[in-house]
Amino acid sequence: MKKLSDLGERKAIQIISDILSKGKVAVGIGDDCAAFEFEKNYLLVTTDMISKKTHIPKMMSPWQIGWFIVAINLSDIAAKGGKPLGLVLSLGLPKNTSESFLRELIKGADKCATQHDAMIVGGDTKENNEITLCGTAFGLVKKDEFMARKGTKPGDIVAVTGTLGNAAAGYYALKHGIKDRQMLKGFLEPTPRLKDGMALAKTKVVTSSMDISDGLSSSLYQLRDLNKVGFEIDKEKIPLSLMLKRKKGFDAYYHAMHFGGDYELIVTMPKNRFMEAQRAVEKTGNNLTQIGRVTKDKKIMIKTNNKTRVLENKGYEHFIKRRYS
Amino acid sequence: MKKLSDLGERKAIQIISDILSKGKVAVGIGDDCAAFEFEKNYLLVTTDMISKKTHIPKMMSPWQIGWFIVAINLSDIAAKGGKPLGLVLSLGLPKNTSESFLRELIKGADKCATQHDAMIVGGDTKENNEITLCGTAFGLVKKDEFMARKGTKPGDIVAVTGTLGNAAAGYYALKHGIKDRQMLKGFLEPTPRLKDGMALAKTKVVTSSMDISDGLSSSLYQLRDLNKVGFEIDKEKIPLSLMLKRKKGFDAYYHAMHFGGDYELIVTMPKNRFMEAQRAVEKTGNNLTQIGRVTKDKKIMIKTNNKTRVLENKGYEHFIKRRYS
Repeated sequence: MKKLSDLGERKAIQIISDILSKGKVAVGIGDDCAAFEFEKNYLLVTTDMISKKTHIPKMMSPWQIGWFIVAINLSDIAAKGGKPLGLVLSLGLPKNTSESFLRELIKGADKCATQHDAMIVGGDTKENNEITLCGTAFGLVKKDEFMARKGTKPGDIVAVTGTLGNAAAGYYALKHGIKDRQMLKGFLEPTPRLKDGMALAKTKVVTSSMDISDGLSSSLYQLRDLNKVGFEIDKEKIPLSLMLKRKKGFDAYYHAMHFGGDYELIVTMPKNRFMEAQRAVEKTGNNLTQIGRVTKDKKIMIKTNNKTRVLENKGYEHFIKRRYS
Repeated sequence: MKKLSDLGERKAIQIISDILSKGKVAVGIGDDCAAFEFEKNYLLVTTDMISKKTHIPKMMSPWQIGWFIVAINLSDIAAKGGKPLGLVLSLGLPKNTSESFLRELIKGADKCATQHDAMIVGGDTKENNEITLCGTAFGLVKKDEFMARKGTKPGDIVAVTGTLGNAAAGYYALKHGIKDRQMLKGFLEPTPRLKDGMALAKTKVVTSSMDISDGLSSSLYQLRDLNKVGFEIDKEKIPLSLMLKRKKGFDAYYHAMHFGGDYELIVTMPKNRFMEAQRAVEKTGNNLTQIGRVTKDKKIMIKTNNKTRVLENKGYEHFIKRRYS
């Protein structure tokens, strides 16, 4: 009999998805959010669970843990072009958790929510052996602005917001005792790209979209499987985190592609609409960079100095491997 | 510095509620569901977390665990008069969880959802040392049919749906190895009272409502604190579970009042509207029984044979004490 450690998270999700009854929901399992029809809008719903053992780095402060669980949920709303409404937050905490830990955690969660025009409206608080947090975020998006994971075609270009590798740089700082607040924030206090998501949605040019939480390579493989396409990525075009570039003896591109934890958005669109999308994102104060093309051949290739090789999927998958040691 | 074990769940929730920013939400923390204005409706949202250590009895099958997490979330929607839309379900599972455990759990969750016209539309699956499930349900209710926890006044009557003590009877069966499927179901497969809730909401006579998940005494104390009223309960009018009545050497009333886990609804309303509410619930196939009165004096009294004494709050509260040993 197979165990979850043999199956991995994505196979487990496939099993769950196969069992669940399907119905009138517009978008179900397999996208960043579920979506219900609500007159001319979709109601977006997404949930994320994290626990001390596998998802919360030891050095994360209670305030940052609170920020993080809200940020990763809002990131899923962002990836669909949604405007957040609010969140509920469930806390599983050991009996000996201090009152100050609880207070700091809630302050961090509240700060991340209010800073992004969302509100924490409820939750649950229960005893658990392990610190376990579960957030559920809600948002709205106009039906014709919803950015699904599925929809891209060969010939589209693929682009990412911001820079990649900020989380990897923060992790490096943490591991090496570098007290650079900006570096650490990249890993411990990610920014959900809500403004970028809403700006991109309004252009109506995006043919597929997701957040890059599990790493660029993992995201590309997920988009490939869903869209039955391939990708050709230009390695030198990947917008590297400035903080990663600074580190010597550190394969910046490798970390930017595989480490994950960046919560930027990856989007596809017709080639001739890229400038429009780029301008929309720039108005929010962020960048949109074309990093490659969608191909008919279902491989994921990385191109550098006119040499092309397969980009392996080294992103994060739960149950099978863990990111933080 | 205080620990959560000193504070208890309700004090922890108070601390959380005091820290969180307040905004345009119609109903926030302190009710069974949060509520957002949505044109002429409220969007109801509720979340519940359970874990193996404190909330999942050892004898519960994986199918029943799945049923349970969905049922307790839908019960909160029921208590507000809502029609459920759907749920998201997050699973924190140990690495060595078997595939069949996962399959059975999802089948139970799906059954409870579809049987109540709801659908599981998404979720998250993560590694956790302890089996930890977090469900979030959402539903809709017309604004003028929403049944809040707050609103009752002295002079109202207090009533409960169904019978109390079914969970206690099931727990008794479990402890004594009694293989009576009906008894066990009262504890392990509670029914969310959605039909009753919707029927009561349509009458528009209910002045306050909540589910009795933590026990009758605990629910009365929560309604008292929120409404600044008291209650006088007629002990002999409490509708006892038939299965509890049958057990000899077992204080049926004590368990019906304090054990919890029944997921019936407790509601208040003006005295002269009770018959109307009763008829509405009877049409759903359940009963509504008047068990007492709302009083000005902020005590909770229990009356039997013309003797009146204080009803103590012996309901379940997390962190401080645990129900299952």
